[in-house]
Amino acid sequence: MKVWRFLGFDDGFGYGEAYLVGCVTAGTYVEGFMVGKIEIDGLDVTDRIIELVNSSKFRIQLKCIFLDGLTFAGFNVADIVKIHDETGIPVIVVMRKMPDMDRIRDALMNLKDFERRIRIIENAGAIEKIEGLFVQIAGCDVEDARIFIRASKLKGKIPEALRIAHLVASALIHGESKKF
Amino acid sequence: MKVWRFLGFDDGFGYGEAYLVGCVTAGTYVEGFMVGKIEIDGLDVTDRIIELVNSSKFRIQLKCIFLDGLTFAGFNVADIVKIHDETGIPVIVVMRKMPDMDRIRDALMNLKDFERRIRIIENAGAIEKIEGLFVQIAGCDVEDARIFIRASKLKGKIPEALRIAHLVASALIHGESKKF
Repeated sequence: MKVWRFLGFDDGFGYGEAYLVGCVTAGTYVEGFMVGKIEIDGLDVTDRIIELVNSSKFRIQLKCIFLDGLTFAGFNVADIVKIHDETGIPVIVVMRKMPDMDRIRDALMNLKDFERRIRIIENAGAIEKIEGLFVQIAGCDVEDARIFIRASKLKGKIPEALRIAHLVASALIHGESKKF
Repeated sequence: MKVWRFLGFDDGFGYGEAYLVGCVTAGTYVEGFMVGKIEIDGLDVTDRIIELVNSSKFRIQLKCIFLDGLTFAGFNVADIVKIHDETGIPVIVVMRKMPDMDRIRDALMNLKDFERRIRIIENAGAIEKIEGLFVQIAGCDVEDARIFIRASKLKGKIPEALRIAHLVASALIHGESKKF
């Protein structure tokens, strides 16, 4: 049987440092990790993700890339359309709760490149509810996303790749993982 | 059913930096990570492990601590008797191959605290072969070690906690995991 690979990215930041951590699973089996640095409130997370994915030996058979929300390390917003265009891999943003867009917009107002950040967020498209999660999708349809999420999770609702990337990113900042 | 927790420590080093990474699993399910720094060719790995374990929220129900060999970050040797004494948890050193003790001894000769390092290594006791692995044990017997290894592995011979700690440590240094 062909193995479906999934890649999940999460961030850890604090003490002036921000890590971007990717975890690769084959189904739910952990195959490897990627670690990069991003800027707090920067605008480099999109390019860092594209670089890590396109230079990765795990690239083959990647069915999709899961992101833990659109914003990394503060308000470093990920452009999922660009990530999909430049990697050729579907991108699924996974959120436990409906994001409060008014609050995000207010926070972004204080940052430079405000309009560019808003455009990236609006570009990410509609928020759909599937499998008990709120998702935004680039590069596949809702039914594909549902199948990928089901195939990538073990306990709970969150894909293993994303859950484990979160645990590593948290340990990098705090010395030990905090709860997801 | 009571869950058996396992903790595996491995190191990643290069470019003048050395990380100590711990992965905690419940059975084979990833629960969390610990990250610390150690000195290349230093003598601090024993104390770092004890600190990480004794301050960890994952400490409860830890059946054993797996180490990937006795030497971390070059020749920073782990004192498994001290780790067991100060944490109260059995320690199992896991090696794929029989270590070449003559070669290790020769390499240690070039380092300060040579005698102390040799004493720590000799103190780790006999090397046993179980489950296709070479192990050294402090705080439990060979039969317990066999049961712990069996309960902690998924594919292959290596406990998941150790396999995954290795993948994270490798990604911290190289940007992406290399093979175990």
